[in-house]
Amino acid sequence: MIIRKGKKTDMPQVLSLIKELAAFEKEPDAVVVTVDDLIRDGFNKNKRFKTYVADIKGEIVGMALIYDRYSTWKGRTIHLEDLIVKNDKRNLGIGKALYLRVMHYAYKKKVKRVEWVVLDWNTTAIDFYKNTGAAILTDWNLAQLDENALKNFIDKN
Amino acid sequence: MIIRKGKKTDMPQVLSLIKELAAFEKEPDAVVVTVDDLIRDGFNKNKRFKTYVADIKGEIVGMALIYDRYSTWKGRTIHLEDLIVKNDKRNLGIGKALYLRVMHYAYKKKVKRVEWVVLDWNTTAIDFYKNTGAAILTDWNLAQLDENALKNFIDKN
Repeated sequence: MIIRKGKKTDMPQVLSLIKELAAFEKEPDAVVVTVDDLIRDGFNKNKRFKTYVADIKGEIVGMALIYDRYSTWKGRTIHLEDLIVKNDKRNLGIGKALYLRVMHYAYKKKVKRVEWVVLDWNTTAIDFYKNTGAAILTDWNLAQLDENALKNFIDKN
Repeated sequence: MIIRKGKKTDMPQVLSLIKELAAFEKEPDAVVVTVDDLIRDGFNKNKRFKTYVADIKGEIVGMALIYDRYSTWKGRTIHLEDLIVKNDKRNLGIGKALYLRVMHYAYKKKVKRVEWVVLDWNTTAIDFYKNTGAAILTDWNLAQLDENALKNFIDKN
C-alpha cells in the first residue's frame, strides 16, 4: 500500500468511498456530489480541497480530504472533512497511515490546529482520535442553512 | 448603520469584537490571533477569509467572518466562523442585517449550504438561527488536534 496525493483519475473511486461513508453514517441518499464536481472543485487553480489516497495496486482503499480553514481565536487551521477506509480493508492500519500523512502536512504548514467532526455514536473513531491527542468537544451544535432554506430566507427578507 | 466589507483598518476593532465573543463563550484567554495576523491572513492574494462589518460613523459595532468550505456530500459551501454584535448594541437588528448580508453573498455564489457552529447553551442564538430556517444538528462532536498535540503526535509516530 502507498499513500499518495489524489489524482483526477482517482475521483470515481473516491466518490465510491464517500458514498460508503454516507451509508455508514445512515444518510445513504445525502451524497449529491458527482465525479465531475470533485474534478472541477479539487483540481483547478482555485481548488477547494486536497486529497490523499491509500492505493493498493491501483485500488483506492482509503482517502482523506482536507482544506484550509481559519479560527478567529487561533489563526490558520486545516479541516479534515473525510477520513475513509473501505469496509473490507479496516483494521489494517490504513486509516492511521492516512491520518498521519494529513498531520505531517499540517505540521509542515505550521497551522494552529487540525479540526474535524465525528458522530457522537462512532465511539471507535472517537477513541482513535483521543488516543492521538485530539480533544473531543461535545458542547457545540452544527448549524446548516441548505440551498432551499437559503433561497426561502432570501425570498422572505 | 451601514453594512460593508471589512477593511484592513477595521481589524483592531474586529479583534476587539472577537475577544468580546470569546469572553461571552467563557474562553476569554483563548484568543491568540493578533491584528497583524488578521491583516496578513485576510487581505493578501490568497486570503483565508472575508469579513463584513456593521459601521456606525466609524465605530464597528458588529462583524461577520466567512470563508469557503467543501462538503463531500453536497459540494461548495460557506462557513460562517463568527457573527458578533457588540454587547451594548444588541437587539437592534444588527446581527440580522449582517446575517442577511452573508446569506445574500452565499446565494449569489450558488453554494450548496452555509454552515457554522453554536454552543448548545446559547439558546437565543439557536432560536434565531432556527427561525431563519437553519437546521441545528446535535449529534456531531468537534474534534481538534491543536499545535502542541500535533507536535506530540508527529514526534511519536
